Amino acid sequence: MQKNEMIELLQIQYPIIQAPMAGGITTAELVAAVSNHGGLGSIGAGYLTPNQLQEQISQVKHLTTKPFSVNLFVPNEIITSEKEINRAIQLLQPIRDKLQVPNVSIDFPCSESVMKIFEEQIRIVIEEKVPICSFTFGLPSNDLIVKLKQHNTILIGTATTVTEAIELEKVGMDLIVIQGSEAGGHRGNFIHDVQESLVGLMSLIPQVVDHVSIPVIAAGGIMDGRGLMASICLGAKGVQMGTAFLTCKESGAHLLHKETILQSNEEQTVLTRSFSGKWARGVKNKFMTEMKEHEKAVPEYPVQNLLTQSIRKVAAKRNDKEYMSLWSGQSPRLAKNETVEILMKRVINEARNIELL
Amino acid sequence: MQKNEMIELLQIQYPIIQAPMAGGITTAELVAAVSNHGGLGSIGAGYLTPNQLQEQISQVKHLTTKPFSVNLFVPNEIITSEKEINRAIQLLQPIRDKLQVPNVSIDFPCSESVMKIFEEQIRIVIEEKVPICSFTFGLPSNDLIVKLKQHNTILIGTATTVTEAIELEKVGMDLIVIQGSEAGGHRGNFIHDVQESLVGLMSLIPQVVDHVSIPVIAAGGIMDGRGLMASICLGAKGVQMGTAFLTCKESGAHLLHKETILQSNEEQTVLTRSFSGKWARGVKNKFMTEMKEHEKAVPEYPVQNLLTQSIRKVAAKRNDKEYMSLWSGQSPRLAKNETVEILMKRVINEARNIELL
Repeated sequence: MQKNEMIELLQIQYPIIQAPMAGGITTAELVAAVSNHGGLGSIGAGYLTPNQLQEQISQVKHLTTKPFSVNLFVPNEIITSEKEINRAIQLLQPIRDKLQVPNVSIDFPCSESVMKIFEEQIRIVIEEKVPICSFTFGLPSNDLIVKLKQHNTILIGTATTVTEAIELEKVGMDLIVIQGSEAGGHRGNFIHDVQESLVGLMSLIPQVVDHVSIPVIAAGGIMDGRGLMASICLGAKGVQMGTAFLTCKESGAHLLHKETILQSNEEQTVLTRSFSGKWARGVKNKFMTEMKEHEKAVPEYPVQNLLTQSIRKVAAKRNDKEYMSLWSGQSPRLAKNETVEILMKRVINEARNIELL
Repeated sequence: MQKNEMIELLQIQYPIIQAPMAGGITTAELVAAVSNHGGLGSIGAGYLTPNQLQEQISQVKHLTTKPFSVNLFVPNEIITSEKEINRAIQLLQPIRDKLQVPNVSIDFPCSESVMKIFEEQIRIVIEEKVPICSFTFGLPSNDLIVKLKQHNTILIGTATTVTEAIELEKVGMDLIVIQGSEAGGHRGNFIHDVQESLVGLMSLIPQVVDHVSIPVIAAGGIMDGRGLMASICLGAKGVQMGTAFLTCKESGAHLLHKETILQSNEEQTVLTRSFSGKWARGVKNKFMTEMKEHEKAVPEYPVQNLLTQSIRKVAAKRNDKEYMSLWSGQSPRLAKNETVEILMKRVINEARNIELL
């Protein structure tokens, strides 16, 4: 495979990033396996405490000497009210009752404490000399960007529109992941609203590459060599794949989550904000359907996420997929349950075997 | 460019179809220019009476000896009520008043009369020996398919999901256009609902080609050689482009429609059903915004389409783009105002110059 700017910046063999899926999916085994087989493994650290992050970084370092990345959520200001929270608690009560989820008291963080955790996470990325740090949900402050750059950390931002991509280049990101409407999990939009941000990669990649000069990485629905080569044709330098790695043997996703994706069709992945307060794509289930009517009224992330946490935990323990968050991109029919090694080799072989006109 | 099944079936030089945009856009000049320059021109005949269709076919035949196609809307059963129609009239009244649109009496067709027109349109396609006939919004009856096949008409269906594509292959279509969520104009979903049908091409193409054996043509957001080659990588045999041809010199689209697309961004094309009663993608304007709240309640196509017709006509005459339907796919930044000849040559050159890994 030819060298390109993405491969050179990240010092990897193949232009493939494993998407930083948060919530226990990106085990050290998954991250290290991707890096060991020529891609870029990524720790989805959005929900990790600084201590948990440090622990996971050292686990990954035990398993690989290759570059890997840490992905962080850029904190958004938390705007909510007791009234809004109480209403959301009420809306969730019938589900708690049905699943016998004990009521727990929740410490809702303030904007300042979330920002403090974010700064701590960055301190650890620097201390541990993690070579690459990626961001979702917005722009880190200039101070933090300068600090990371002083330590030669390569920075990756996430955009869903041309305007967002231009902003990321302006603040100093080295590469941009552009997230198409096909993508599973949380939408990364931070300037445009979610409806405006739902642009398919066939449209989004060429429009973005015409407006920025740093390397663009395509994300959303890409599962195999066909998606990789299509992204390259459109002007991307490589791809980021989430769902494709989620169903791999090494991933920490719940077995039912993997099985559900392996049995789903493209029309079954829909958008919801009922789980976390941020819009995200996953396989439709009862939780989404029951909350549908109210989803626009639930509190923003991270408040709603904390409110549904105990429900999702109990559902996972009971193997009840109807109340778990089953994030998936729009290509579940292309998912396989294989090892990272086999997936990586397959994608590269498929890409090499594509015949053009 | 290498031969493939699509090019051979359609007897064209390049794997490019001009999308059959209804409503005066596909002038005989546009259709003939596309066919004369190696693609497949298509008459968007959805709104044409049998006489108008016959007239346009003979105009196209005057301008080209190459194959071209006629696209027809498969009629859906019309289910509405006086109450629903009156409510819709009321909702539109403030807009009529503002634009001083005279009240006109409308003859609402019944399902039977719409079906009769459709059968007449097909009779003309056969009489005029149009080589290719394409369909949107569903499956023609078996009788009609048999009749067309007896006259060696090549048939193209339109699908938005794998299931819809499989159905089209089953009933005997020779090729399938798959419409990604990126596409402008009306959604072609006929089995799944509109939300389920909004799958990006990066996901949709490979999943469809894995499940059908007839040639697949990608449609939605494709504007240049990058989109053409990406579609081929994903497994399509060619592309259908709408917005790219809409802004061409030969297209009959309103000048303001062309200008609006040429000045728009990807996040500005949104879905609405307020214009016609069917979901469609276009550049956001005041009509969409003012009707937003009620759009799920307006009568189905063709009723709402007839109710808004006079508004759209007056707006077009007055050059008021805020109340015209400004259909566009998600790639308006890639639109150019050039001749069909230049567009075709550019796309093919760009495609040939793409370097892979």
